[in-house]
Amino acid sequence: MPSTTPPESTRRIVLARRPQGVPAEEDFRLETVPVTPPGPGQVLVRAVHLSLDPWVRGAMTGRDLGHPPIHPGDLVPGRSIAQVVGSGDWVVAETGWQEYAAVAADSLRPVKVPPGVPRTAALSVLGTPGLTAYAAITRLIRPVVGDTVVITSATGAVGGAAGQLARLAGARPVAIVGGPAKCEVAVEKLGYAAAVDRHDPGWLEALAKACPDGVHGYLHMAGGDVLRGVSGLLAPHARVALCGLPDHANEAGGTVLPAGAVMRARASVHGLVVHDHFDLRPQFAERVGRLLAEGRLTFLEDAHHGLESAPLAFSRLMAGLNTGKAIVHLDPDTSDN
Amino acid sequence: MPSTTPPESTRRIVLARRPQGVPAEEDFRLETVPVTPPGPGQVLVRAVHLSLDPWVRGAMTGRDLGHPPIHPGDLVPGRSIAQVVGSGDWVVAETGWQEYAAVAADSLRPVKVPPGVPRTAALSVLGTPGLTAYAAITRLIRPVVGDTVVITSATGAVGGAAGQLARLAGARPVAIVGGPAKCEVAVEKLGYAAAVDRHDPGWLEALAKACPDGVHGYLHMAGGDVLRGVSGLLAPHARVALCGLPDHANEAGGTVLPAGAVMRARASVHGLVVHDHFDLRPQFAERVGRLLAEGRLTFLEDAHHGLESAPLAFSRLMAGLNTGKAIVHLDPDTSDN
Repeated sequence: MPSTTPPESTRRIVLARRPQGVPAEEDFRLETVPVTPPGPGQVLVRAVHLSLDPWVRGAMTGRDLGHPPIHPGDLVPGRSIAQVVGSGDWVVAETGWQEYAAVAADSLRPVKVPPGVPRTAALSVLGTPGLTAYAAITRLIRPVVGDTVVITSATGAVGGAAGQLARLAGARPVAIVGGPAKCEVAVEKLGYAAAVDRHDPGWLEALAKACPDGVHGYLHMAGGDVLRGVSGLLAPHARVALCGLPDHANEAGGTVLPAGAVMRARASVHGLVVHDHFDLRPQFAERVGRLLAEGRLTFLEDAHHGLESAPLAFSRLMAGLNTGKAIVHLDPDTSDN
Repeated sequence: MPSTTPPESTRRIVLARRPQGVPAEEDFRLETVPVTPPGPGQVLVRAVHLSLDPWVRGAMTGRDLGHPPIHPGDLVPGRSIAQVVGSGDWVVAETGWQEYAAVAADSLRPVKVPPGVPRTAALSVLGTPGLTAYAAITRLIRPVVGDTVVITSATGAVGGAAGQLARLAGARPVAIVGGPAKCEVAVEKLGYAAAVDRHDPGWLEALAKACPDGVHGYLHMAGGDVLRGVSGLLAPHARVALCGLPDHANEAGGTVLPAGAVMRARASVHGLVVHDHFDLRPQFAERVGRLLAEGRLTFLEDAHHGLESAPLAFSRLMAGLNTGKAIVHLDPDTSDN
């Protein structure tokens, strides 16, 4: 069992240079370095499933709200499902993009997923993306039966969960995604009532047609043009959650919201940062865990293999090319969870 | 008593042409026309105090949410405190900008103001502007003790009431106004903790200095540049009420809200249209009436005299040159309320 053998060296990925726009593979560098021995209060863990998350892009430019900035030469930060070397315990750990990491023992959380559910769910639908979706839907958008709820990045880790939670609340979820393949995934696999391809020049007309009663709830994680377009379709008293601004993360200009549309709809617009909603964790874990166990909620994974694939996988994530939660499986023996 | 003598003709003001930008006097025309005799269910009223309101500008371009569009040749719409010809009863009536009007008897509301309070309060602090301020503060901005609440058009009919209601809730109201004279009025007469002149090129630095803990609540009724500036000062979990968009009313371009600022502050932004908050009327009338009677709330009036002064007064209102509620007193005998 590999987790019982303390290694001498580890591979890791560091930032090579500050990215311009959507990060490229060349912005990263793979290194092999000696394993740092665990200090007092630390344990050595072996990362098995690495989570790739959009907030990392913000940290590269010092824009992320919850994480310190990173600079060229720094290990890229990130969360993994890992095994404690020695005990073999499965934990969620802040390992960064590397194979072995010395981490504070008291920062580890056990991996809790219902029986039959892959353990990577703890990084997606039962992890921070799932909690983000849960806060967006249950606390900010609050759909009621019959509402139309539009979700951007609708097949992503947050969007996929949000659309299903809206549907389970009796609302009609409508997906905005990039490309016809994702439209199909949205409807066929995630239960969206309709899906619109934002690369189609007629996407806004298609969205208007898919939302004949207007948009009662809107989860925004897309570009400024999408925000502007959807704003014009808001139904009276619509609720909007601003959850991700990829134009900002990719430094592609500032997203703005037309104030006239907010007034016309007497809408409420909320900035959503998941750290504000950690109080929801127990009810989220209980409810979403049960929905997963009952097979009423599903989740998609954008799976990659080998640490060396992380830079390209991250580039695809930030370009919106992923479908589902982006995960890099670091160990070929455990890639099937 | 003039209200008992049915007149033969009435003076009225009609729209002469569609205004460009801030309305000019020449956009209006004074006419003398025969009085329309009251039809079934109607009574004749004599307008005594005419209210000038920004929504009228929106109706001229078909942009107002609650009122039908008006066209050249149409009577300019508006609310008055009037006397019923014959009975002499004081009522609030939708007379339009004219001296005598036949109006539906069941549309009239009695003028209710506490003893010692001028009856024009029913058009301002106890009328729609007061209710707008009350909804903005008590329902959307919800200041708590120690909060900093920034109010634009802070000496206007809505802003003046909102600033005082915020102060009475234990918050620190900060005014944004146009010109040093209004800064003085804001602090000296309306009890603002500080006031900033938005015509001063250094207004945003001055505002930042006046709000060292950030802006917890913001009532927006100003231009897009002000919205953009204040957005950058929002404190965590700030509440913003979008209540007036003069750039839109004056067709001076679309106001936008920076989405990054909303996210950074995890702010909530609400579009406010007073018609959504009519359910607050009883508690508003009770509470604000009591505050007025106790002398704990005051209000300012931008008084004009004679129907012919209405176009210039309205132009000044839409240019932000009024201080307090814009009222045209139509009868020299009753101009002192």
